[in-house]
Amino acid sequence: MSILVVGSIALDTVETPYGKATDSPGGSALYFSAAASLFAPVNVVGVVGTDFDFSQIEFLRERQVNLEGLKVEAGETFRWGGRYRRDMNRRDTLFTYLNVFEKFQPEIPDHYRESQYIFLANIDPELQMTVLDRIRQPRLTVLDTMNFWISGKRRELEAVIQRVDILILNDEEIRELTGHPHIFQSAQKLLELGPTALVIKKGEHGAILVTNHSYFFSPAYPVSQVIDPTGAGDSFAGGFLGYLAACGEINEANMRRAVIYGSTVASFTVEDFSFKRLKEITRADVDSRVEEMRLMTLF
Amino acid sequence: MSILVVGSIALDTVETPYGKATDSPGGSALYFSAAASLFAPVNVVGVVGTDFDFSQIEFLRERQVNLEGLKVEAGETFRWGGRYRRDMNRRDTLFTYLNVFEKFQPEIPDHYRESQYIFLANIDPELQMTVLDRIRQPRLTVLDTMNFWISGKRRELEAVIQRVDILILNDEEIRELTGHPHIFQSAQKLLELGPTALVIKKGEHGAILVTNHSYFFSPAYPVSQVIDPTGAGDSFAGGFLGYLAACGEINEANMRRAVIYGSTVASFTVEDFSFKRLKEITRADVDSRVEEMRLMTLF
Repeated sequence: MSILVVGSIALDTVETPYGKATDSPGGSALYFSAAASLFAPVNVVGVVGTDFDFSQIEFLRERQVNLEGLKVEAGETFRWGGRYRRDMNRRDTLFTYLNVFEKFQPEIPDHYRESQYIFLANIDPELQMTVLDRIRQPRLTVLDTMNFWISGKRRELEAVIQRVDILILNDEEIRELTGHPHIFQSAQKLLELGPTALVIKKGEHGAILVTNHSYFFSPAYPVSQVIDPTGAGDSFAGGFLGYLAACGEINEANMRRAVIYGSTVASFTVEDFSFKRLKEITRADVDSRVEEMRLMTLF
Repeated sequence: MSILVVGSIALDTVETPYGKATDSPGGSALYFSAAASLFAPVNVVGVVGTDFDFSQIEFLRERQVNLEGLKVEAGETFRWGGRYRRDMNRRDTLFTYLNVFEKFQPEIPDHYRESQYIFLANIDPELQMTVLDRIRQPRLTVLDTMNFWISGKRRELEAVIQRVDILILNDEEIRELTGHPHIFQSAQKLLELGPTALVIKKGEHGAILVTNHSYFFSPAYPVSQVIDPTGAGDSFAGGFLGYLAACGEINEANMRRAVIYGSTVASFTVEDFSFKRLKEITRADVDSRVEEMRLMTLF
């Protein structure tokens, strides 16, 4: 039931109306791992610079996250800086220094190759493809991407989409991918490329699971205070795939619950900067909020 | 179980990417009535000009809508013109001619005064207050408003809010009313003024029922094509209050179902211009889509 994630590891400097965090650990692979490891063992592939302080992510190791595939290269760790506006729905990127991440070539340690659940976080689709080529018998492959690749490497991205089982994208990315303003028609077009399911992330408006024959709507859990939305999407993916890996069986009922788990884990992420909340919660905390979600959708 | 609605009657000229409709009947009172009358008898109070063609709303009469309180004044009917952008989430108002609506003074026919369910559609809060004063023993009062009154007649509006049971507002209006960016904290502040429940309309993102002790989330039904969003909010209110009036009992379980019914009726409204869809559907069509909504939220 182990999960493989390939993505970025970053040091984020984030300003929100509630404060500022400087050089906090972040990046898609780490947010995903912090979330998914609440449910199942995670194998991480990524790169950091010699300045990276592993003690900051020691809690991941304690939580069955294997960091063996995390390469340390000479140079500095990828750095991202952003500022959220008052309503938290929009952010401005202040800086992006790729540093050692610029030449990242995923190397999959041998015993990672038995991983059954694969999360291709938002990286160059050509690298995503090489990862797929190296995995023996994946049981479930899940893909994320971003506008940058949609406009810059569309052909390569479409080739990866054809090979994965589930896409997790936000509504803007889906519209940009298909060039169609209608979100459900866009979703159906994407399913025609091959995936069996698509998860539409809508931030504070929740998430939608789309298959060829059904829709499932999940609200976002109503947190009392959003402190820092960074990492919400990747921890959604972590909760989603973590839950499915722990279930073992991939069917629609489990995928629906996985969407609820993804939304719920993300609701913890945004309650503080960086991993502060994800670090202190347990699977039981998530289960209890999932039960609240059930009561909030019952009619 | 009869419902009273006080609001506008308009002739709308609407352009969307799918076409244009000129001088079609619209306005909050009519959209509300077309929706609510699928469930219960409706008494309408409003004003039209001598140019208004009653044959266009003959279907309302056939559907237990009492138009006796609809006054005909010398002059032209209220006219509104708008154009929706490609993504349908934003519209530009092209013109607003209040005409006979400018001096509208609601007059409640004597036998309307026994109405138990009251919808105060978006009109001047001072007029909304006079309506409340004239109703004998309302069982449930529901209020809508808009930015124009929030900024222009805040004190008068707050006085009405203190007297009603339920507010139905969109997220922008709620934030503007409280001056607070956080939607759930804003909702709680509004409940402190007196109402027992607040319904947050979020358009394509669904609706949220907020009470002092609970949240309930309804998705928007995924329509295959939005042709004209005009009237969605008022027909949501019509489905909501119509369902409650037909139930008779006001409790949280029924309010939750009422939110689902409101969302569902609104999903029909947007499938064509003006009342075209609302005119042809029956309660059974709504019930069947509500059942789909149940399946789309089950986990």
